[in-house]
Order: sequence, then C-alpha cells, then structure tokens
Amino acid sequence: MPVISLTTDFGDLYPASMKAVILGINSEVRIVDITHSIRQAGIREGAFALYSLVPYFPANSVHIGVVDPGVGTSRRALAIKAGDSGSEQFFVGPDNGLLIPAARRLGEMEVYEITNKELTLKSAVSATFHGRDIFAPVGARLSKGLPIELVGHTISDFVDLDFGNFGIDGPFLVGEVIFADSFGNVITNIPDDAVLKFCTFDSNVEVNGRKVPFVRTYGFVGQEEVLALIGSHGFLEIAINKGNAALKFGLKSGDQVVIKVL
Amino acid sequence: MPVISLTTDFGDLYPASMKAVILGINSEVRIVDITHSIRQAGIREGAFALYSLVPYFPANSVHIGVVDPGVGTSRRALAIKAGDSGSEQFFVGPDNGLLIPAARRLGEMEVYEITNKELTLKSAVSATFHGRDIFAPVGARLSKGLPIELVGHTISDFVDLDFGNFGIDGPFLVGEVIFADSFGNVITNIPDDAVLKFCTFDSNVEVNGRKVPFVRTYGFVGQEEVLALIGSHGFLEIAINKGNAALKFGLKSGDQVVIKVL
Amino acid sequence: MPVISLTTDFGDLYPASMKAVILGINSEVRIVDITHSIRQAGIREGAFALYSLVPYFPANSVHIGVVDPGVGTSRRALAIKAGDSGSEQFFVGPDNGLLIPAARRLGEMEVYEITNKELTLKSAVSATFHGRDIFAPVGARLSKGLPIELVGHTISDFVDLDFGNFGIDGPFLVGEVIFADSFGNVITNIPDDAVLKFCTFDSNVEVNGRKVPFVRTYGFVGQEEVLALIGSHGFLEIAINKGNAALKFGLKSGDQVVIKVL
Repeated sequence: MPVISLTTDFGDLYPASMKAVILGINSEVRIVDITHSIRQAGIREGAFALYSLVPYFPANSVHIGVVDPGVGTSRRALAIKAGDSGSEQFFVGPDNGLLIPAARRLGEMEVYEITNKELTLKSAVSATFHGRDIFAPVGARLSKGLPIELVGHTISDFVDLDFGNFGIDGPFLVGEVIFADSFGNVITNIPDDAVLKFCTFDSNVEVNGRKVPFVRTYGFVGQEEVLALIGSHGFLEIAINKGNAALKFGLKSGDQVVIKVL
Repeated sequence: MPVISLTTDFGDLYPASMKAVILGINSEVRIVDITHSIRQAGIREGAFALYSLVPYFPANSVHIGVVDPGVGTSRRALAIKAGDSGSEQFFVGPDNGLLIPAARRLGEMEVYEITNKELTLKSAVSATFHGRDIFAPVGARLSKGLPIELVGHTISDFVDLDFGNFGIDGPFLVGEVIFADSFGNVITNIPDDAVLKFCTFDSNVEVNGRKVPFVRTYGFVGQEEVLALIGSHGFLEIAINKGNAALKFGLKSGDQVVIKVL
Repeated sequence: MPVISLTTDFGDLYPASMKAVILGINSEVRIVDITHSIRQAGIREGAFALYSLVPYFPANSVHIGVVDPGVGTSRRALAIKAGDSGSEQFFVGPDNGLLIPAARRLGEMEVYEITNKELTLKSAVSATFHGRDIFAPVGARLSKGLPIELVGHTISDFVDLDFGNFGIDGPFLVGEVIFADSFGNVITNIPDDAVLKFCTFDSNVEVNGRKVPFVRTYGFVGQEEVLALIGSHGFLEIAINKGNAALKFGLKSGDQVVIKVL
C-alpha cells in the first residue's frame, strides 16, 4: 500500500483537487499532507520541510512538492528516484531546487525531466496548476509502479539547492537559519554531530552574542526563557519555551548564526 | 475503493467526528477534505468550492457538503445522484442550494429528500450537528453501494442556486465575482470560452475601469502587479502576482465585473 | 481496517512525520486528524477534544494524544485499553491526564506504562519529539494487533484529570467551562440530562446573570443573538448565532457558569 506525500504553498482548497486526481488513478494509495502552508514561492522553506521528513517515510513513497513560482513558464518538470536499491523513494515537482536536498539525503539519485505527455491529465493542461495537471498524475502513476524511465529522460543540469555552509571559524561554530516553524522555533543548518563535537549539553553557549543554555529539551528552562537544543529535525535550534524565538530575535531563513562556548 | 469528500464551514475538530462515523460504517473509504474553512453560512462559497473540484473526482465519489445555517429547523436533507450512467457521483447535504451547481455540472441529476431514519446515527439525532448524525452516515452508506432510492423519495422543488449571469453588453463583457480564494485571487463566473471569444492572451483589457494585462500565468507579470488570467478553475480571474487582489480592490462574492478590450 | 486518531498541539508539519512512521509500520491503517491546534500545553483542552469525539469511533481505534509540555523530562509514557470486551479502544500518550477522561468515558480501563524500548523508533529517540519516536510507533503496533501487555506493565498511579464538578446549588445549576471551540462557542461541563432536568427548551434562563433563551439550535435566534443550547458534544453550550461568545463574554476553560431558570 504505497504512500504519497504533498508539500505545497497552496493553502486551502487546491490540495483537494490534487488528491482527487491521485485517487482517480490509484485508489489504493495513502496520502499524507506534509504541509500546504509554505510561504508563497518559499522554495527554500519547502525544500527543508521535505528534507526533514523524508527519512521517516517508507520505501517506495512518492513525494509531490509544488512550490512553483515559475509555473507556466519554461521551467522543467522533474521526477527523481533516490536512495539505496530496494528502499528508493520518488519525488515529483518543478525544477527549481525544491526536491533536491530531500532526494540527495537518501543517497544516490537519478533525475528525469518529465516529457511524456501521455502521463499528464487528459484535458488541456492548465497554465497555472501543474500540481493538479502534471505532478499529481505522474506521482500517482509512479506510486502504482510505473518505471520512472517512462516519464522522460535523465538530466544532470537540474537547478540545485543546498542549505548553505556551516563550520568552525576560530572559536566560533558558524551556520545559518534554514527554517522557522509555526511555533517560531529557529532551525539552523548545523547538524547534531557538529554541535555535539563543539559543545556539551547543560553548558552555556553564546548565540549571536547572547548567553543561552544548551539543553536537551524545552522542559529544562522556565517559561519564556531562551534555549538552544538539538531539535527533532536533528539540527541546532534556537527556541523560547512557550514563546516565539523567530519573532523575538528577528531571525529568518538565510540569517547567520554564530555559536561560542562560554 | 470509493472516495468521500467533505466541504464544510466547521473549522477544526468537528470534521473528525464525521470521519469517525464514516469509517465506522465503511472502513474501506478514502476521505478527502475539500475545505473546512468556508465562511460561516457561506452557502454560495461552499457551492463554488464543490462545483470547481467535482470534475476531478472519480466515478462513484460521494460528496458531503455541510454549510447549513438552517440546521435543526425544517429545511430538508438531500441526497443527489448526478452524471452520466456508469460515471455518476453522489451528493449529500442540506436543501439550501449548496450541492446543486456541482451536481448539475455533471449532467442529469436525481434529487432525493432523505427521510429514511434507519440510515442515520442510531443515538438521538442532534439538533445542531446533522453533518455527523445524518449526512455522514448516509454518505458512508452510499459509498458502500446503498441504492439511492432507499434514502427517501425524489423531489423537484429543491432550493436552487446558480452563480449569476454573464454576457456581452455592448463593448463590455459583464459577469460577477463568485469566490475569492485564500490568496486573494478573485474568481469570476465568466468561463474560459466566453473570455477567449472576447479577448486574446497578451493583450491589455480594462477591468472595472483599470488597465490590466490579460496573460497566461502569474509569471508573466512582475511581483505585486495586477493581471487577468484564465485560472485553474476555468474562469476569468483577477489576481496580483504574490499579492491579494480581493483585499486591494475590495472585490467580494456577488460584485459586478466589467471587462473591455483596449 | 483499523483507525488511528491524532490529537496534538503540533500545528503544521510535525504531524506528517508521525503519519510517515505510522504508515511505515501499518500501511493499512486509516489516520484521522482530530486536531493539531490545541493551545500549546493545553492538556485540559486536548483532553476534552479527545473525550468528546471518542464515542463516535469504531471498536479497536487507537487514539494518539500528544499535548506534552513535559516531553524529555521524567514523565511516563502510557498506553491504555478501555471499553467493554469486544469493543475496546486504545490510547497512547503522555502521563499527564490528557487521555484519561476519554478512556474513562468508554468504561473499564487498563493503564500501562510504556517501557518496552523495542517498540519505539529504532534510531535514537529524540528528547523533544516522543509523538514521532514513541507514541506513533507504539500506536501503529497496537493498531496491528500487538497485545497491549507487551508495551510494559500496568500502573494505577497515573496522573488523573476530570472536567470539574457540576450540580444544583439552591436555585442555581452550577458548572464550569471546559472548552471554547474555533467559533467561540463556550462548552460547559454540564451534561444534557442534568440540563434537561433543570430547565425546558424554549424557556429563558439566566447565564451568569444575563437573560438568554434556551433553545434547540442556532437557527431559533437572530444573527448576533446569544443563546444557550445542548451542543453537539452533549453538554450545555453558550453561543452567539454567527458570533463569538467566548470573546464577547471573556469565558475560558475553568471559568464558573451559573444557570438560573427565569
């Protein structure tokens, strides 16, 4: 019983037509909404949402991502197979970087441009809603076992995207913000192993010049207090216990984060 | 594997009890949320949401619509079968017009008043929540193959609803607004074929006295610029690229829209 | 075909990783979102959401509740079996009272502390996301028929929670607010039978000193008018027809409600 996930900036109403199309093609599939609340045209945020969730999905899952400011222009449509043989997952969406970090996280990837028009919605394809007319039907067919080779041809010049560099710079561990979640927790691009080589739990660190305890979980500080932790995504997070760190510190995607041990 | 869709003004929490009732009757069904964010008592908006999505659903889908300001009063409960023989879809909801445009869009329709009390929830039916107590169980039974004749008797004096008239008036194409989506895109009742007989892509038109480019998709104008396009619903839309046209122009459901070729 | 429900304060994005984990273990299950919009750390509100919906779910449903301010501290993880033999339902979540009113509503209950680490996510369990790493996998295994005895051992000193007392006090029926829904309807802890012994439909009552009609449904009063009714949850509710009673009267969870017959 295959799984299809959806990650879009569509808000309300529009995701349902993608689901209708998918179920019309593969009535057996399970559909999981990752999110439909990505900031409009927020490719980087959408890429992180998909990237952070993809390790939890079973083999053969198909992830349809549609954060697509270039819809209807000449940008290409992609289908990707990624991961070790026997536990691959699939990705369908626009060629703007959205799918790449998630696919690459799984290991080897093959990237195809979707050119086979027989796989898309039979009626005239809308200029504005490729989520429904191209990505949903192609994703549904992949979930039914369509060999990915039939969607089109492989390419290597796809639009790439990563979450920036992180590393040691003298006494500092330097990275950047990749996402602020709906609670205002600020997620950086510094993974747990890099953090834990640099500092130890229950010590104090300086985050962008501000003294903050580095602890295991929210419950170890009082309400409204700032903390640094390894979040559930596996990255260094800056948070406020029952508060909104993104709002309070004005931190947003792309901002630099500088950590120092105290 | 049948599909049931839900379109309501219930917001959070209440849709789950409809789903619990449905799955208790038909554990095989796939449930698709169209929207639960219709403005309270917004029958016309709910009717449009259902109308715009219904062509994408597979045959035998059951659409439960509950925008129902008259719940608990004497308004009737309806079940409808619509569409060509072999590819029918079903509708369940209140007799207030909500279901009619969607059902009529599919072709021939048979409208039944639901009077068979053996099909509704066994415990006393709540005066305020027919979505859970009547529409969910009747919809679930239809999705399992219950012949619609068993819900009650056919009627022809159901409450009707349409999206208003559109047409040519001298040099003008005149219609009205039927919906503003969650991004503020303003959807009119003028269908694509009427628009394309009147003007051609990549020309300028006047919309309510304002000069606007008529283009194929959002990407053809700059950020924050106004455009007219054939939206994914198949109707003329007025939009702002990455902006909110409904808010900016104060356009809402029922307002007149007047188009002129420049 | 079993059902798993989810009730959390997770907002967006995080529920999807619970669903991914669940479907990886039991691809046959149906997942129903009760709500992910519980106020952060609103254990009482979450408990009411679960409590109010649980009677509508089929036998063998598994309810995962995660409103969990103590995550990562020493609070215990629970699994509960509740209800009459042959129609039991299951509950998984933190030991903070969240699950208790719903489980108790079904009848007899057996409460287990989850200690079997072989049932949780194989990778290191996150300190902050037991919803994904413990409750989702345990819930998924219960939905596949895992005997609950295998999760750990029974306990009787679980954290209890109820919705407070209600009763007659001289000429008054006194209770308290347990929930305000997303429309601002104020739900009290006074059940329908206690209300209907005290007053009759279509009479006037005084609610906290304010004269209000007690009617069967919203449609019996004009727009913006206050009413008292037996809501769909089966409790006395104070509402405003197409308005927000919680906001207007400043009523919130825990506030006293005093009813007098006029």
